[in-house]
Amino acid sequence: MTAIPAPTASPARIPADALADFYDRAFTRAGLPPEDAATVARVLLTADLRGIASHGAALAHGYARRMRDGGINTRPDIRPLTETPGTLVLDGDAGAGPVVGTYAMGRAIAKAREVGVGTVTVRNSNHYAACCNYPLLAVAEGMAGMTMTTTGPTVVPTFGAAPLLGTNPICIAFPGGARERPFVIDMSTSVAALGAVGVYRREGRALPEGWAYDAAMHPTTDAAQARYLNPLGGDRAHGSQKGYGLNVAVDLFAALLSGGRYSAQMQLATATPDPLQSAHMFSAWRIDAFVPPEEYAARFDEYVRMLHACPPAPGAERVLIPGEPEWLAEDDRRAHGIPLHPTVVADLRALADELDIPFVEC
Amino acid sequence: MTAIPAPTASPARIPADALADFYDRAFTRAGLPPEDAATVARVLLTADLRGIASHGAALAHGYARRMRDGGINTRPDIRPLTETPGTLVLDGDAGAGPVVGTYAMGRAIAKAREVGVGTVTVRNSNHYAACCNYPLLAVAEGMAGMTMTTTGPTVVPTFGAAPLLGTNPICIAFPGGARERPFVIDMSTSVAALGAVGVYRREGRALPEGWAYDAAMHPTTDAAQARYLNPLGGDRAHGSQKGYGLNVAVDLFAALLSGGRYSAQMQLATATPDPLQSAHMFSAWRIDAFVPPEEYAARFDEYVRMLHACPPAPGAERVLIPGEPEWLAEDDRRAHGIPLHPTVVADLRALADELDIPFVEC
Repeated sequence: MTAIPAPTASPARIPADALADFYDRAFTRAGLPPEDAATVARVLLTADLRGIASHGAALAHGYARRMRDGGINTRPDIRPLTETPGTLVLDGDAGAGPVVGTYAMGRAIAKAREVGVGTVTVRNSNHYAACCNYPLLAVAEGMAGMTMTTTGPTVVPTFGAAPLLGTNPICIAFPGGARERPFVIDMSTSVAALGAVGVYRREGRALPEGWAYDAAMHPTTDAAQARYLNPLGGDRAHGSQKGYGLNVAVDLFAALLSGGRYSAQMQLATATPDPLQSAHMFSAWRIDAFVPPEEYAARFDEYVRMLHACPPAPGAERVLIPGEPEWLAEDDRRAHGIPLHPTVVADLRALADELDIPFVEC
Repeated sequence: MTAIPAPTASPARIPADALADFYDRAFTRAGLPPEDAATVARVLLTADLRGIASHGAALAHGYARRMRDGGINTRPDIRPLTETPGTLVLDGDAGAGPVVGTYAMGRAIAKAREVGVGTVTVRNSNHYAACCNYPLLAVAEGMAGMTMTTTGPTVVPTFGAAPLLGTNPICIAFPGGARERPFVIDMSTSVAALGAVGVYRREGRALPEGWAYDAAMHPTTDAAQARYLNPLGGDRAHGSQKGYGLNVAVDLFAALLSGGRYSAQMQLATATPDPLQSAHMFSAWRIDAFVPPEEYAARFDEYVRMLHACPPAPGAERVLIPGEPEWLAEDDRRAHGIPLHPTVVADLRALADELDIPFVEC
């Protein structure tokens, strides 16, 4: 692999198929059965395509290392623990988060098919990459979907001075209409995702006031020093309970309803090679259990048109639908390839070297 | 009623039972059957007790007027439209929101009892007062609960310049433990509730930057001029999709899944005497469908202890659990009565006059 030229400063664009093939080879080589490697590849590629740079290629090396080191169980026995017609609790057996999550969302979808709505909780899983993957599986079946997950502790309770919460994201997706694409909101319940802080750091910009604390728990706007975050809408000055409350709700739905660990009981991925013990929640709602799908589709299109017709604020170009920037990114990346930061390309090359497999041409 | 002395500037405290009795009499006199009057009374009193001043006594006069003027149907035929074992769509027949909401949450609870989880959507309802009422009905049955509702349009999409969204609140509640009281997060998906803006106005304080717009859609910090609000975390400077996305999710869950009106299709209560056509969503999850209740209770207590042990930020007293301020308010009000602002007392007296019933002594 040493013959490949060193990465340059301009972002490389890699065709989506080539990147997916590379993931496939890498995760198979790292120990996953082929169908599970394909699942993890699909899940990372979804983030690459949608422009969620922190949750695609940037995760591949770490995932593969954990597969080889035992932090991710490559042959998990995903076991049902408690079940009713509409609910299920699973033990993920320390499997790869995308494998466990895809299976669990599939079970929630199956339950919604039977009784209109299904909720599956999971204990003892691992990082499951970009949340949007799972509700989008429901969307593909004509259902609305929701997921939540615990994460390692980096977020500070409102009025507190210790990181006892995770970024604890929530994602909700609804099927699109006859013309408009699905609605997707994929959000940490912290004021920003850790990935967003990384963007400020790489760009050398100061963080907005009220976002972050340094290692000594002093408020900071220096992205390089930022280590802990406030909840959404809940800095010390305003003390809103909103983001804090949603954040705690994620711990309760994902961890307390699965018997798994809540975020404060987890370690950061950077701090341990052991299984992360993530806990997740997945829900699905069959659209046609509520309204005729064609009526839903027509009204969804009308709703999107209504928002698109909103006059823009001074200086703004136009109003987008939540999730729309990600669909536009996907159009661009499917046509022109996936732009990867040089440090990410270098990391993928290092992974290829470690696994002794070829890297993709780019 | 004219012999009763005029209200003074210091807030009166009215015993909770006396206030509930007054509501009961007033709503019965305004046309509700006694059991429905008792339901509306209980729903308003919950807000009074929990310190949600905008959603208790302050609503009573307007509710009663709508009952008399036909905006609220006092004899609704709440009809099932579509049903599966885990889901149900109801037509609220323009009934009082608290009556429709209490019935609908009861159906979600019954479905969760059968299949572990239940979701009920409602079209053609009215304002249902404080959201927390409905998930707390689930909590009383050993379940987690969630509700969402559309409202009139007052919130501006991120990067937009027209109020095409409602404050679209979400409430989630979980049962407490052996020692700790239930978790409740009851939040608008706007940066603040309209009621919070009213508090700034009454106190003569400037709003935080980035909250509000005046009638001409110019940003304002003048609470008296504020007419429209930004979504949670989504002012023009930061452009976060988070609050905006949650807000749209409420429209989709409550209105598109019920066939009802979304917020932009509604009128403000101040603008019309007609039925408001509110749409709601209610979900319940049986705790014991997921984990043994005693295990849940022990872990819930442990979780609350963990947050209570968080060191406070400089200048802060201690870290509270989301919902805890409301429980503390309820303790105070049950013991010492409910403090009512003089303008609210005057409004209740006017209501008593209109209905020709005695007002409570205070």
